[in-house]
Amino acid sequence: MALIVQKYGGTSVGSVERIEHVAEKIAAFGAQGHKVVVVVSAMSGETNRLMELATAIQPQPDCRELDVLLSTGEQVTIALLAMALKKQGVAARSFTGGQVCIRTDAAHNKARIVSINQQRVSEALDADEVVVVAGFQGIDEHGNITTLGRGGSDTTAVALAAALKADECQIYTDVDGVYTTDPRIEPKARRLDRITFEEMLEMASLGSKVLQIRAVEFAGKYNVPLRVLSSFEDVAVEQTGTLISYEGESMEQALISGIAFNKDEAKLTVQGVPDHPGVAHQILGPVGAANIEVDMIIQNVGADGSTDFTFTVHRNDFQRAQTVLEQVTKDLGAREVSADDKIVKISLVGVGMRSHAGIASQMFEILANEGINIRMISTSEIKISVVVDEKYLELGVRALHSGFGLEQSIEVSQ
Amino acid sequence: MALIVQKYGGTSVGSVERIEHVAEKIAAFGAQGHKVVVVVSAMSGETNRLMELATAIQPQPDCRELDVLLSTGEQVTIALLAMALKKQGVAARSFTGGQVCIRTDAAHNKARIVSINQQRVSEALDADEVVVVAGFQGIDEHGNITTLGRGGSDTTAVALAAALKADECQIYTDVDGVYTTDPRIEPKARRLDRITFEEMLEMASLGSKVLQIRAVEFAGKYNVPLRVLSSFEDVAVEQTGTLISYEGESMEQALISGIAFNKDEAKLTVQGVPDHPGVAHQILGPVGAANIEVDMIIQNVGADGSTDFTFTVHRNDFQRAQTVLEQVTKDLGAREVSADDKIVKISLVGVGMRSHAGIASQMFEILANEGINIRMISTSEIKISVVVDEKYLELGVRALHSGFGLEQSIEVSQ
Repeated sequence: MALIVQKYGGTSVGSVERIEHVAEKIAAFGAQGHKVVVVVSAMSGETNRLMELATAIQPQPDCRELDVLLSTGEQVTIALLAMALKKQGVAARSFTGGQVCIRTDAAHNKARIVSINQQRVSEALDADEVVVVAGFQGIDEHGNITTLGRGGSDTTAVALAAALKADECQIYTDVDGVYTTDPRIEPKARRLDRITFEEMLEMASLGSKVLQIRAVEFAGKYNVPLRVLSSFEDVAVEQTGTLISYEGESMEQALISGIAFNKDEAKLTVQGVPDHPGVAHQILGPVGAANIEVDMIIQNVGADGSTDFTFTVHRNDFQRAQTVLEQVTKDLGAREVSADDKIVKISLVGVGMRSHAGIASQMFEILANEGINIRMISTSEIKISVVVDEKYLELGVRALHSGFGLEQSIEVSQ
Repeated sequence: MALIVQKYGGTSVGSVERIEHVAEKIAAFGAQGHKVVVVVSAMSGETNRLMELATAIQPQPDCRELDVLLSTGEQVTIALLAMALKKQGVAARSFTGGQVCIRTDAAHNKARIVSINQQRVSEALDADEVVVVAGFQGIDEHGNITTLGRGGSDTTAVALAAALKADECQIYTDVDGVYTTDPRIEPKARRLDRITFEEMLEMASLGSKVLQIRAVEFAGKYNVPLRVLSSFEDVAVEQTGTLISYEGESMEQALISGIAFNKDEAKLTVQGVPDHPGVAHQILGPVGAANIEVDMIIQNVGADGSTDFTFTVHRNDFQRAQTVLEQVTKDLGAREVSADDKIVKISLVGVGMRSHAGIASQMFEILANEGINIRMISTSEIKISVVVDEKYLELGVRALHSGFGLEQSIEVSQ
């Protein structure tokens, strides 16, 4: 018998029928003797409906009152799911964030969980009830309702699993796990049985939108095994999804776990910058001051004592970043700014590359064989990212997927 | 400067535009220097929408979870109204029933308020904020969400007014006050400036559906002056509505305040009942056991030692009551059951009749002059009710309204 926290997102509870389907899944799971805590999001469409009401009154809604408003979305779902469970003969009890004392800081609309008092949940579990908790919400120290921001229900689930020392936190979503890459680009993409927290963080932040980054960080910090599963599978189908955890001794680690990509970036280069100390700060200071986030950064010193300084930003910030740089270029006496938003970032991710040399050159060789020119390179301990022209996205991803043998099970390839 | 509790019902806050109109009214009121606590219902239609979701899952929804679900309706309104107030430049803060500790018993769906901790409301008022409270809801001693049942927002407003020792509790609705009778039946019906709690209770329970009976009882018990006003009037219009309070010394009391009626009743008579002790109980015991509520009861002893026993029930219970009585008639050896659901009850209400004889005979004379046959009579200290054929409803109401001079101001008629 295990204690499991399950989280169902908005699409999974998007209608009365879907809620009843979820109740069946939970009932079947409980029938195996497990204790279950369920965290749910608002029914899909509900948050947008509420947001429209708010913005009809205030284009920038008051942040305290917006949380009072939006938190009703999850409250509707917990009540309906508890009803659906009782209809199945399963004892169940719903709780709002406030009722289970999910204490957050006071940063409305993007609050962070400070603590959870698990007493009421434990009491309900001891009474053999399925506990249904509203995700995404909490209360600050003065009892004001707060929300964790979009996707925060994942974080609620992980935080509850950590507080309850649950055996596993299961995130049910509309995909059945984490894939080696996006199956829409590489149909041979394979579902991973396991992946480490670090790899998942790199995959998520690089554009594989399965899990919220904060939830993965939280799970890693408190060592909560996290499993991604599909809520759309038939109840009878035995599912395993993808387990996200730390590297275990018994875990044959793949060399490469997956290939992520990001189509939302743009590249900016300040050319002919005089090479003296403090130049990076003189360039990026004004960019940061304009509230523009920078991703990759590269600086090359040329033979003539000047340097080219290149970085990437989100495409939404592309125009603004160009304007900022034009002024910076003048101030620095640099030659010119070149800019390109027709690029894509492709990344190899895998903890296995820590102990393997030669992965980077293998990657570059694969891309070169396809005639793909690399525009930027950035590496970390468990990933290698390259920027290439966006027209090469599909070709590059498929070539790397095949080149590193990701379509086969590589659990024993090491 | 006064402390006023205002309550706005579902129609008054039925759309974003209506909510902004209410915010204007509150802002104008606050600009006069008053402190304001506002209680709101769910936007009209919202409770039904939520109810449909619930009954799609459980035809008889679990009562605890139904309260979790329905209480979101008012929570949406408080957030939107607080936003609308802030947009007008009025400092405001919303509270759920739980947040202001509206403690109730544990009777889900029809809970009763046990106590209110007014500390948080007082703090917000001291900070010159308009306090916006969700009506209709509270929490039990274990922190479970409860609701007071339909129309319970009136009760929330009165209870808050009592706890805060407010100067007045104003109920904004879609009519501009309490009328001498239903203006749809008698266009000459006049709005009353004042009415007593007792009269209002008789008017409300007799079918003038302006205020919830429980709210009026509560207001009377805690001596909270209650005022009924229209939320649809223009902000600039000075309104007085109808004030409901105890008889004051300075209050010229009208003889008759109004004429109520009830079209939902049906009449049942057991004829030829042997006249011996305990007969009333033998007849009404089985009726009560079948969970049928009885309104008027009359028993006449005939010359032959037998008696006729007549009472009224709600028309919804008419068929069931007949079935019960057929068995009772057999058991008692009574002659037969006669039944009639084509009746209507018309009542004169007025605390002035306490000290005036002859009101009843005047009423019967007015009806007789119109050829209206009276089928039942029942009296209390401040009302006289008659049952007549339902076809006489309009004629009877108009004749009495005119006969007692209700179309003129009768504040000084005594």
